[in-house]
Amino acid sequence: MDNMDQIVTTVLQEIQKCGIIKEQNLIPVGISNRHVHLSEEHLISLFGEDAKLCKIKDLSQPGQFACQECVTVVGPKGCIENIRILGPTRAKTQIELLAADCFKLGVKAPLRESGKLTGTPGIAICGPRGCVNLSEGAMIAKRHIHMTPQDAERFCCRDNEIVRVGCCGERGGILDNVVVRVTEASKLDFHIDIEEANCMGIIGSDKVKIIK
Amino acid sequence: MDNMDQIVTTVLQEIQKCGIIKEQNLIPVGISNRHVHLSEEHLISLFGEDAKLCKIKDLSQPGQFACQECVTVVGPKGCIENIRILGPTRAKTQIELLAADCFKLGVKAPLRESGKLTGTPGIAICGPRGCVNLSEGAMIAKRHIHMTPQDAERFCCRDNEIVRVGCCGERGGILDNVVVRVTEASKLDFHIDIEEANCMGIIGSDKVKIIK
Repeated sequence: MDNMDQIVTTVLQEIQKCGIIKEQNLIPVGISNRHVHLSEEHLISLFGEDAKLCKIKDLSQPGQFACQECVTVVGPKGCIENIRILGPTRAKTQIELLAADCFKLGVKAPLRESGKLTGTPGIAICGPRGCVNLSEGAMIAKRHIHMTPQDAERFCCRDNEIVRVGCCGERGGILDNVVVRVTEASKLDFHIDIEEANCMGIIGSDKVKIIK
Repeated sequence: MDNMDQIVTTVLQEIQKCGIIKEQNLIPVGISNRHVHLSEEHLISLFGEDAKLCKIKDLSQPGQFACQECVTVVGPKGCIENIRILGPTRAKTQIELLAADCFKLGVKAPLRESGKLTGTPGIAICGPRGCVNLSEGAMIAKRHIHMTPQDAERFCCRDNEIVRVGCCGERGGILDNVVVRVTEASKLDFHIDIEEANCMGIIGSDKVKIIK
């Protein structure tokens, strides 16, 4: 009977997370490795006066792309080579690290939403034409969902709302504190980093569900 | 009012996971990096005829220890150096990898409980005195809780039961499919790997809670 109780509980949990779900309620997953967004000024400092970012792949969010160019990020305890730049250039340079990178680099990067750099630590970035000592910009990206106002209506979410996300599978579970970002120019996508994806056993073709 | 509903929901979730909890219901966390357990035969093959494992640190489980000795693991796509050996030697050699390592090495290691090697892929291990081509033994460790029968009674758990574990904090959530392992020789500890810890924002001094 104990076993039966456990089976019923487990099945109910799986149904809540993954089970009787209509396809239109599922959210695609975008998995990020560590990456850098550069300002125009820093692009020139690192890659030279005439530098232009060279797109190799479009990303899920309209207008965003992975670039051929990579940089080395150097912290007080170590460095990481071949960190991909994501384009286009932005108003401020920002380095999105994995939590494991912070130990290797010796930098205490906080969990932040993209663009919210105030109070983040600086770090050095090196490119083929020079290095830049940033005074701020190192962060671990806070997991988030991009969606349009139409998606937001469908999912009963508001911009900046904090939701939970259920992940199915052998290594599944629930991720708390997921920020919803609603803009007209978004494409529906749940953004996590490689460590989060590996923890939950998620690959790029998986889909997840908002749990309220 | 919408905001109020959200606050109430969030607070209730936090209370369920982390809130009004007696200290004796919390479980300490042990975070593992990739590591290797060697058989006597493979210890000799890799480190020489008179090799002995040299303890540098006791681990949470009685009799288990981290060794001075490290090995290089080599897969079809790459290698990883300086993988720590955990002692004492075991009946069979086993390599516990992070999910990220599997991409780097080019090996599809399944999620497994320690010791359950049947069907796991082989890989090469190299030490200072030679290499061994394993026919099996590469796995990603399935998250688990070690406890004594007395702990099991306190937590209302049985050996081999699958439970969920709630993790507090800014990057918290719930980890599903956690195996409970009950033995007299255990010490209460929730074992996860570095990627799982980083995903949940957990450090070694944190404590977690079983959620049924």
